[in-house]
Amino acid sequence: MALVHFPVINKQGEIVTSSVTTLDVHDIARISRTYGVETFYVVTPLPAQQALVQRIMDHWLTGYGAEYNPSRREALGRVRMAPTLDAVQEAITRRTGRAPRTLVPDARRFARSISYRRGREILAEGGPFLLLFGTAWGLEPGLVERADWILDPIEGMPDYNHLPVRAAVAIILDRLLAPREAPGP
Amino acid sequence: MALVHFPVINKQGEIVTSSVTTLDVHDIARISRTYGVETFYVVTPLPAQQALVQRIMDHWLTGYGAEYNPSRREALGRVRMAPTLDAVQEAITRRTGRAPRTLVPDARRFARSISYRRGREILAEGGPFLLLFGTAWGLEPGLVERADWILDPIEGMPDYNHLPVRAAVAIILDRLLAPREAPGP
Repeated sequence: MALVHFPVINKQGEIVTSSVTTLDVHDIARISRTYGVETFYVVTPLPAQQALVQRIMDHWLTGYGAEYNPSRREALGRVRMAPTLDAVQEAITRRTGRAPRTLVPDARRFARSISYRRGREILAEGGPFLLLFGTAWGLEPGLVERADWILDPIEGMPDYNHLPVRAAVAIILDRLLAPREAPGP
Repeated sequence: MALVHFPVINKQGEIVTSSVTTLDVHDIARISRTYGVETFYVVTPLPAQQALVQRIMDHWLTGYGAEYNPSRREALGRVRMAPTLDAVQEAITRRTGRAPRTLVPDARRFARSISYRRGREILAEGGPFLLLFGTAWGLEPGLVERADWILDPIEGMPDYNHLPVRAAVAIILDRLLAPREAPGP
């Protein structure tokens, strides 16, 4: 999985680099760990932001935090920094021997958007897969277009669509990866 | 829905009052609004903590924030402070003419725990319902025992169970309240 800070769009639709939110790194690390995501990549080209995430990770992985809060250490142990999405795809290809296929959730519905049920079937076919989440107002549209699959919007109330990205990640991983309940009577 | 800061338990199992996390109020207000929860009650008996939440709400409902971020205003418009759970139940009873029946998610599985599928059936029977979330290490055990229904644990990886409460709320509301996808082909 990757949380992308560039290229994303702002409220005006311009392509920007968003700031890393340390809270998102913490929350999404735990959520990823809960659902068995192998690696959670934080993608930002800005060295100062990479250093910030590295400091958080060092604190919880080897500093005082590691002893104080082992569950956080365990979650952050699966976080990696990456300067670009290309670097993420190269890392996955190097490790698995195959280029990952990409899934992208999007708040809009496209002709080729797929249901979460279909998404589960695709994941069952075997990876590697790369699930992309955009920050700010979402991924640069070309990234969405080039994705192998686009997932349906999360449908809550049709007139309100303002979930924090950490909540969207929780919901989407639950829909794609949670063990299914046995069919009811 | 209620986010309970007292009575909850700490790591040692002692009954404590936890601190309100402003981020939880913001995130959970948006998540609640997304899934059509009528009112999100923040339950704390501590006047200083109530004042803190009130200040956040005033900022976003009537202050500079209301103009700057209307979607946040809309979400926070459904937040209410309550000193106790009894006060929440009285408010719901007053408004609806019936005492709410309570559902409680819990990280442990009980003999009477129900699936989320069963939870959806119960909600379809008609309310009022009150969904309780504990902060810190969870609701005081007596509250869980007295609930009308206890929901199954969220099952991710069996060896890791450290979701932030705001992530748990997102997942549980999605499981209980999201419109269901049409059955696949």
